[in-house]
Amino acid sequence: MSRFWSKITHALTPYVPGEQPQHAQLVKLNTNECPYPPSPRVMDTIQAISDDSLRRYPDPSSVALREAIAATRGLGIENVFVGNGSDEVLAHAFQGLLAHEEPLLFPDITYSFYPVWCQLYGLTSRTIPLAEDFSLALDEYRAGRGAVIIPNPNAPTGMALPLTSIRQLLDQNPDAVVVIDEAYVDYGAESAAALVPEYENLLVVQTLSKSRALAGLRVGFALGNPALIQGLTRVKDSFNSYPLDAVAQAAARAAVEDVDYFDECRQQVMATRTSLSEVLLELGFDVLPSQANFVFARHPEHDAAKLFAGLRQQGVIVRHWNKPRIDQYLRISIGTEAQTQRLLEVLTQLL
Amino acid sequence: MSRFWSKITHALTPYVPGEQPQHAQLVKLNTNECPYPPSPRVMDTIQAISDDSLRRYPDPSSVALREAIAATRGLGIENVFVGNGSDEVLAHAFQGLLAHEEPLLFPDITYSFYPVWCQLYGLTSRTIPLAEDFSLALDEYRAGRGAVIIPNPNAPTGMALPLTSIRQLLDQNPDAVVVIDEAYVDYGAESAAALVPEYENLLVVQTLSKSRALAGLRVGFALGNPALIQGLTRVKDSFNSYPLDAVAQAAARAAVEDVDYFDECRQQVMATRTSLSEVLLELGFDVLPSQANFVFARHPEHDAAKLFAGLRQQGVIVRHWNKPRIDQYLRISIGTEAQTQRLLEVLTQLL
Repeated sequence: MSRFWSKITHALTPYVPGEQPQHAQLVKLNTNECPYPPSPRVMDTIQAISDDSLRRYPDPSSVALREAIAATRGLGIENVFVGNGSDEVLAHAFQGLLAHEEPLLFPDITYSFYPVWCQLYGLTSRTIPLAEDFSLALDEYRAGRGAVIIPNPNAPTGMALPLTSIRQLLDQNPDAVVVIDEAYVDYGAESAAALVPEYENLLVVQTLSKSRALAGLRVGFALGNPALIQGLTRVKDSFNSYPLDAVAQAAARAAVEDVDYFDECRQQVMATRTSLSEVLLELGFDVLPSQANFVFARHPEHDAAKLFAGLRQQGVIVRHWNKPRIDQYLRISIGTEAQTQRLLEVLTQLL
Repeated sequence: MSRFWSKITHALTPYVPGEQPQHAQLVKLNTNECPYPPSPRVMDTIQAISDDSLRRYPDPSSVALREAIAATRGLGIENVFVGNGSDEVLAHAFQGLLAHEEPLLFPDITYSFYPVWCQLYGLTSRTIPLAEDFSLALDEYRAGRGAVIIPNPNAPTGMALPLTSIRQLLDQNPDAVVVIDEAYVDYGAESAAALVPEYENLLVVQTLSKSRALAGLRVGFALGNPALIQGLTRVKDSFNSYPLDAVAQAAARAAVEDVDYFDECRQQVMATRTSLSEVLLELGFDVLPSQANFVFARHPEHDAAKLFAGLRQQGVIVRHWNKPRIDQYLRISIGTEAQTQRLLEVLTQLL
């Protein structure tokens, strides 16, 4: 605390990201990174970066990258906004599109950054409890002239809604911005990007951190009606003109364009998710049906905090929240086959 | 305009950065980039980036980079905050440290992003006119429990205050945060970094965009008392956990550590500034005394907008603002010797 802090600084409860040990040799299954390296084209692009592109300011509008993203969806550049990770994109959306007199609606169990952005930008919000089985209570999302944000698949449950449900959500909220946060959509769920031309109130947010294996590069994007993209751009141009550096713009473009490699990686992650889930079930875990690159599981006879600590002691890091309703669950990122084997070995010892 | 925008989005007047033509062959003297490439160590570092460091989230706290910056100033890591360009650092400072009930004070002629951040975060501000000769009216900066921000050297004038004046500013504002924005300090002005251990209300902000030739990499930093750094960190951790990507962290560290190269480049820029100023004076320009990597000059007999357009037509871009008091001035970045020759050739033709 300091008398030099602004009022808002005093009031904040900052987000706490998953642990990022920089040196230790660990089986790191705690932050949903891709277990495979990024596309070789990304590495080639970085090798080819010129000193002149570092010396000069980067393109403030990231035109080439936005064109590449638009092309993969059959959209135009006016439908695409990019930012320094999807967290920056979401932060701008909270400030620029989701702050209204009526509250923002989101699930009680979800990405824990949402309430932090509400604090940071003074948004009023109302959380809507997930059903007993952690499914989304779709009918209760009626925001009026407020706004809605849900992750699809949801985090940390991994459970996804089909496109028909997203349509219902949009149809029952014609006067509210509806953000679908699709950080984990590339592992079997349906993207709402296809609905962008139909719904002027839809903003779809995605990231290159997971399915493009570029968590270290910090690139995320939003897809939506041009008026929504312009709103985000107004905020961005009032915050930081150049959010994406020259390396990130070029490398992200290379990643987006390498569709074959992307497909190969995500298929492999989905295959490992299936086999991991089967073994966890055999070990007596309850495993939620995941369409993400992680599983959310609990063991009826073993305390999650103890399992978390036991895994940690053996060098396997997963994620555990000491929060109501989910304090008996572990969120386990899908790793390589070898990492998954090691995880299962240690779990078997602990049970 | 859109009914989906928040109230603040409607009210914004975004910052307009200098033109960044991406392809044309131009003599680009409009955004104060370094005319020389970044340190060879930067390029070596980027070549050596591993795919694993891109796959994983970067260090959210940028520890290695902050340690490197601290070491060059004899400060500790707890005195250093880093961000995605000094614009992000300044934005966080506006929200987290400069927003108080009493207004923020800054000069009438200064970095034009300041009033934009005030809009974005709802700060009240009061501008204090520069004197007739564009010097800072130091005595008038008495902020009470508000705050003060000044660039030193000021932009776009290039004029600098000595450290004794910064001390006076700090001494007459013991209850206000005083931000010294030192984007251009490495070209002959005195840095207030030396005062950080003495003044708990001082925040010094610098960038790697100019004197480290890394505008394309987007790295800036702040130096200050640990309480101020903690305030900025609270805002950062409530906005985006990972503002600096893995490439930027590594490359920025390499740049900061190559002190010899840094000194060589800035000496060369200062030498060119001296020779350019001399020729401009010979051509009849009034040239403000610059301690930055640009000069601010007017010609008593030639309209600045016309000179700007004439230069542009010949492929030489400088900066011109159609604003009160400075609409007869051109801001000309210090380029290479060859660029400077070309600028002077075209100017000579136009006069």
